[in-house]
Amino acid sequence: MIQRPPAEPGMHESEVDTPALLIDLDAMEANMDRMAVFCRKAGVGLRAHAKTHKSPVIAGWQAARGALGQCVQKAAEAEVLAWSGIGDILVSNEVVAERKLRRLAALQSMAKVSVCADDARTIDLIEKVAEAAGQRITVLVEIDMTGTRCGVRPGADAAALARRIAASRHLIFGGLQAYHGGAQHLRSEDEREHAIAGAVRKTVETIEAIRSEGLTCEIVGGAGTGTFRHEAASGVYNELQAGSYIFMDADYARNKPRPEFEQSLFVLSTVMSAARDGAAVVDCGHKGIAVDSGLPLVHGRQDIDCVGASDEHGTLTLRGGSLKVGEMLRLVPGHCDPTVDRYDWYVGMRGQRVDCVFPVAARGMMQ
Amino acid sequence: MIQRPPAEPGMHESEVDTPALLIDLDAMEANMDRMAVFCRKAGVGLRAHAKTHKSPVIAGWQAARGALGQCVQKAAEAEVLAWSGIGDILVSNEVVAERKLRRLAALQSMAKVSVCADDARTIDLIEKVAEAAGQRITVLVEIDMTGTRCGVRPGADAAALARRIAASRHLIFGGLQAYHGGAQHLRSEDEREHAIAGAVRKTVETIEAIRSEGLTCEIVGGAGTGTFRHEAASGVYNELQAGSYIFMDADYARNKPRPEFEQSLFVLSTVMSAARDGAAVVDCGHKGIAVDSGLPLVHGRQDIDCVGASDEHGTLTLRGGSLKVGEMLRLVPGHCDPTVDRYDWYVGMRGQRVDCVFPVAARGMMQ
Repeated sequence: MIQRPPAEPGMHESEVDTPALLIDLDAMEANMDRMAVFCRKAGVGLRAHAKTHKSPVIAGWQAARGALGQCVQKAAEAEVLAWSGIGDILVSNEVVAERKLRRLAALQSMAKVSVCADDARTIDLIEKVAEAAGQRITVLVEIDMTGTRCGVRPGADAAALARRIAASRHLIFGGLQAYHGGAQHLRSEDEREHAIAGAVRKTVETIEAIRSEGLTCEIVGGAGTGTFRHEAASGVYNELQAGSYIFMDADYARNKPRPEFEQSLFVLSTVMSAARDGAAVVDCGHKGIAVDSGLPLVHGRQDIDCVGASDEHGTLTLRGGSLKVGEMLRLVPGHCDPTVDRYDWYVGMRGQRVDCVFPVAARGMMQ
Repeated sequence: MIQRPPAEPGMHESEVDTPALLIDLDAMEANMDRMAVFCRKAGVGLRAHAKTHKSPVIAGWQAARGALGQCVQKAAEAEVLAWSGIGDILVSNEVVAERKLRRLAALQSMAKVSVCADDARTIDLIEKVAEAAGQRITVLVEIDMTGTRCGVRPGADAAALARRIAASRHLIFGGLQAYHGGAQHLRSEDEREHAIAGAVRKTVETIEAIRSEGLTCEIVGGAGTGTFRHEAASGVYNELQAGSYIFMDADYARNKPRPEFEQSLFVLSTVMSAARDGAAVVDCGHKGIAVDSGLPLVHGRQDIDCVGASDEHGTLTLRGGSLKVGEMLRLVPGHCDPTVDRYDWYVGMRGQRVDCVFPVAARGMMQ
């Protein structure tokens, strides 16, 4: 079963069933416009990350502003986008199970779906699956920026994998996945700039090692909302993979004193208990808003702090003033991506009026 | 869209699509049997909490062992259970929106669905909705044990609400919701026993204040997997609301050197990258396993530590040994309830064979 739609077009915000996932459409459109202008001026492509929004509707709005395609992290996310008619999808992640690779091969009839690899076994498995399916699959080599997640060592090891892909009859070497995840949430701009300078060096070293094999990197992709200006300025990256910029969250906002994007994503909640002085409880805990990057903020209410979240309860303290049972509050998620993944429906708002309701189509698509 | 079922009956565990939510059925049945025997001997009822399992199938297995009903936290969870034929449901939480209360009133034709309140406004609203629906609704008073969440002050304030419910023409006063949430995860048995002794004193004080109004508490409910023996021994509580005991998790296991229940819930994951020495990455991050109560453990592999979880990646370090890409590992969630809520399907295992696949029917039902 999926959640019932929490609202209908035309409703006032006060009529929305809570908790509900709201988008301020004006703010989101402004964010998408700003990124589109940036990419055009910088001369880089935007392959927006659908791990954030999980919605072919939003992917369509990004495409209308010039995005050249979408990234996803999972085979099941690629399916949802391809089945919705999105034509160019990169799984910016390793897919290692034969069963999943068969599904990606089957999508090639509908869309170009590329995938990353960081070891020889997986490349050989993709070749075997592609051959059996009678398809050609584009594979990128992911390089390791930080020694903390996926990716082969930059330089010669990465070039060896590129050669192996290019030598596989049913594979096409697509380029480099050079994403520095750890840099996105570093606290200061200087730290982020320094981290990306290191990533650029490793990427350049790898591009040269691959060139000495007689191969070229059609895609050099990476970057996120925290660092994209640095990758774009490098002259090395040609595709940016930012996702969160459309929504933003409390964690990104903490890192930028003057955020360049507006907060457009909220969880609407209702006060369900106000029995204690100076405190209140809302009907949304961490089942409804992700707390892995910190507790939510209360939008427009600097007199209220969220001080705790259990499964279904969010606890608030008030510095002066009071809250009544039934009152509604917009919460700003600590982390946008996993918060979106808790909901089956977006409620698109214009001011306080419900403009549209549409599905988080790839919610939970983690296989 | 919902996730595709990750397995079919008869498959071997190695064929299951990951990440997937596994139940060791033998272990879960042993846990359910143990709790049933305990409640029978202690002379208390078990109103098991469906916020943990979100499944009418599991509710049925609990009923077959003598459970008198189910608890839920949300109106939408109550709907899923009532629509599946569960006859006695307590929303162990405040429901304050008229729209949701109308839905609870509509369920009364199919099931007895009781609800909690901690303020006069909500009681009057439930009365209005019950009258309009031509139904009678049972309402319990929730009392505040810790000053950190919901509930009216024990004693006279609670008795005043009980009187208000009893005086409402379409409401039935059902008793007390006296749950001490904060005590469940205290680290030592002594701390938990001390906390529940305080809860029992507040509950007794409230029962007496209510008796002096000429009213009786048919239900005195509370307790969870961390403390249920103390509530049962009090002679005051007559319904236990434990939920997690069927599954357990790493956090509960940390608090009990000799856990009385077995770990029966796992997230099956696949190694997707092993490019670095002494480290590996699995295909399940915090979108697939809840980390609000700590990182997962790796089942049966004390030589492996989970050291990080990003959205779609779990990072492991190895103390000796190695992991190969494609290898599968069972993860023990840090927190069972929110982990279950990330999945649409349970995969029921007997040993390493898939016995059954059934839906997490109330997944995401937070409205």
